[in-house]
Amino acid sequence: VDDVVVVSNRGPVSFRLDDDGRLVRAGSGGGLAATIRPLLLGSGTHWVAAAMSEADRRAAAEGLMVDDGIRIESVTCDPDDYRMAYDVVSNATLWFIHHHLFDLPRRPRLDRHWHRAWDAYAAVNRSFADVVGAAAPPGAVVLVQDYHLALTGRMLADTRPDLRTVHFSHTPFADPSMLRVLPGAAAGELLEGLAGFGACGFHTARWEAAFRACLDDPVLRRGGRTPATFHAPLGPDPEAVAEQARSPECAAARRLLDDQVGDCQAIVRVDRIELSKNIVRGLWALDQLFEDRPEWRQRVVLVNLAYPSREGLADYLAYRSEIEHTAERINERWGTADWSPVLLSLEDDRARSVAALGRYDVLLVNPVRDGLNLVAKEGPIANTVDGQLVLSREAGAYDELSPDALGINPFDVSETAAALHRALAMGADERAARAASLRRRVLSRTAADWLDDQRAAARALDLARG
Amino acid sequence: VDDVVVVSNRGPVSFRLDDDGRLVRAGSGGGLAATIRPLLLGSGTHWVAAAMSEADRRAAAEGLMVDDGIRIESVTCDPDDYRMAYDVVSNATLWFIHHHLFDLPRRPRLDRHWHRAWDAYAAVNRSFADVVGAAAPPGAVVLVQDYHLALTGRMLADTRPDLRTVHFSHTPFADPSMLRVLPGAAAGELLEGLAGFGACGFHTARWEAAFRACLDDPVLRRGGRTPATFHAPLGPDPEAVAEQARSPECAAARRLLDDQVGDCQAIVRVDRIELSKNIVRGLWALDQLFEDRPEWRQRVVLVNLAYPSREGLADYLAYRSEIEHTAERINERWGTADWSPVLLSLEDDRARSVAALGRYDVLLVNPVRDGLNLVAKEGPIANTVDGQLVLSREAGAYDELSPDALGINPFDVSETAAALHRALAMGADERAARAASLRRRVLSRTAADWLDDQRAAARALDLARG
Repeated sequence: VDDVVVVSNRGPVSFRLDDDGRLVRAGSGGGLAATIRPLLLGSGTHWVAAAMSEADRRAAAEGLMVDDGIRIESVTCDPDDYRMAYDVVSNATLWFIHHHLFDLPRRPRLDRHWHRAWDAYAAVNRSFADVVGAAAPPGAVVLVQDYHLALTGRMLADTRPDLRTVHFSHTPFADPSMLRVLPGAAAGELLEGLAGFGACGFHTARWEAAFRACLDDPVLRRGGRTPATFHAPLGPDPEAVAEQARSPECAAARRLLDDQVGDCQAIVRVDRIELSKNIVRGLWALDQLFEDRPEWRQRVVLVNLAYPSREGLADYLAYRSEIEHTAERINERWGTADWSPVLLSLEDDRARSVAALGRYDVLLVNPVRDGLNLVAKEGPIANTVDGQLVLSREAGAYDELSPDALGINPFDVSETAAALHRALAMGADERAARAASLRRRVLSRTAADWLDDQRAAARALDLARG
Repeated sequence: VDDVVVVSNRGPVSFRLDDDGRLVRAGSGGGLAATIRPLLLGSGTHWVAAAMSEADRRAAAEGLMVDDGIRIESVTCDPDDYRMAYDVVSNATLWFIHHHLFDLPRRPRLDRHWHRAWDAYAAVNRSFADVVGAAAPPGAVVLVQDYHLALTGRMLADTRPDLRTVHFSHTPFADPSMLRVLPGAAAGELLEGLAGFGACGFHTARWEAAFRACLDDPVLRRGGRTPATFHAPLGPDPEAVAEQARSPECAAARRLLDDQVGDCQAIVRVDRIELSKNIVRGLWALDQLFEDRPEWRQRVVLVNLAYPSREGLADYLAYRSEIEHTAERINERWGTADWSPVLLSLEDDRARSVAALGRYDVLLVNPVRDGLNLVAKEGPIANTVDGQLVLSREAGAYDELSPDALGINPFDVSETAAALHRALAMGADERAARAASLRRRVLSRTAADWLDDQRAAARALDLARG
């Protein structure tokens, strides 16, 4: 068995300070760490992750950063550097570039402040590379996760050429013309950073092709090494979904939801409040559905679960209020004394989300661009009523699930409304057959397979050298 | 000599109604028609163009649509169709797609209204194809200009296969992922429409490559004919520029400008108020220049000439007020009792524009994406003081002019400020040498060359068939 080092911005354990200033262990943070953690428990794997807060830094200093059978190595950076790297570069620049979210006439404004943040991003990447370099056994497999750490490939290639390094992108990858938005030097460092890995992985062939197109673009890069690339879509953790679905919290949430939905059919969506998720156009599609197809008025409810995210960025606060405003307009336009077409919930309530995935007649997943979209895979496992999936062709998951999903162009409100109608109007036999086929397809690939593919990519590097 | 038919949305002659409701001939409208017209006067060429207004439609009906030695054929469409095709599809969709201007999380919203507008766009294209089909002599060369008429290629190939048709794009061409924003059927019709032309021309190899990538994208199109493609940058009309520069209006404007600029160096920019022109980031670059390089305070003026455009679109009105607001902020921040750093003019005053091109020490042309940018070529001809050109790498003209221009990433305010500094600080000898080289380069290719290239592309089609 190879020695494996997992590297990610957010780790499996985090801390907060309680009212008395004492350290309290918080839940494992983001979706990525929560997905990987069960696969590594008890394995003795090293996991290198940032101490993201003052509480994390104190916990790391006090030796509290431990998890059952995972050896956590905390990276402690200058807090100002960390904040600039995380907020300004990772989340407000690279995320936007890879998802094509910039309103280019206005954003980004790459000024002095941004260039300082880019330097901070490089410094944070250097801190990670230093910790990995010190912790990794000779010849170890190093699996670096996501866009926060793109520069570490080149750094590790220079300091620890013995390591078999893999980078996995959970986002899409930018097209060349979008990567050109970055200052030339920064775009070059980003590509050289990634090209320093032994292999770079993506959720679909499409993002892999975009990355290769950037490497080959003569404006972005002149020659240099091309790393191995592969695509390996993440799968869900079926047991974790089943266990959540069986929980008493979820059962209670399901009863409440059944009450609220009543005899209506339920369109469900579950997303972070995130510009790429296209929540507002989903609401407009519902509006057009009621206009085009009066038969669905008072017979359909949209259960719109959207949990807050990145509220430090003004864009995300603005998007939240657009969602609220649009939902209100639609409820005012179509609602009656005893029926509201949109049930909007803006709380982070995992039990309620899983309950809603169990109950949907139609699951709406319509991002403008998405690395994969795990909800599109968790839904078909959790669902108990032969619900149908309406899925954006711009989600990475579409490439796998298209035979059993109703594909849409996420910008096309008319097509989205038509797909919702088709799903709502479908007969019971077709519903059952499609739902069963989709479930089989989803279950054919799990999170463990995805991690195995990364290890295999690393081993292939070894053989190539041998 | 071949029979030539020029086809464009806007023609060489337009009319308006005076206060008494009488038809009055207005100036030749847009920049494109004004560029082509002098090349065709007296040639007997057919020119097919829309009757754009009620006045144009009356003038066409009364036989007033004539120009000296140009045979004008007016296309009269249903006014509602024409307005939807022009405003909603051409200017608010295709222009935005080709220039990558959409704020994709929010725009476009392709709803029932948009789909009706797309049908209107097809109907307007059909009207043009019908008029061309009726007017063109057998075997004629047909030169169709720009994105308003993309569908006519397929239509003419079906009804008049004898014609040698060429389409020329004055815009950039969208990358495949941006063209995918359109509904699949519309993107397919657009590409089939263009593929129906014998040849498709662009200002640079880069837009030509983007078009070919769209034709080859398996999601956008499955097989089908690939037209010939070529790139042939438009050049300026040196005599027209010289004539304007000698006019009394221009001389008066120059005296006024000399007064206003005084002993300062002048940074000049001349643009339509247009999202792609990046006027606001230009102002921020000036702000950073004064912050980074205090030596330029009170010694530099930005002459910011921006003339109104498409004010029927809310986006353009909003952009205008962003420009005004930002200019005010900078004048408040840096201005003194006898010096304002920004002279902002929002009037359409060609004499003043040509005067300013004569006077610039630095010409700032920083679009986020631009088919060519003719100002970057007119400036070096009009300029009399060895002014330097700071030019966006995303303008088509950059591919020709880069050896003698100071290239910038238009999103990078810091790099733009640094380029302004370099141009302002340049010694007299280097200034003179670079300006002379740039002028020679610009004069080596004129508008007549560009038109010849289109005719040659059409003749090559003939040879290929023969």
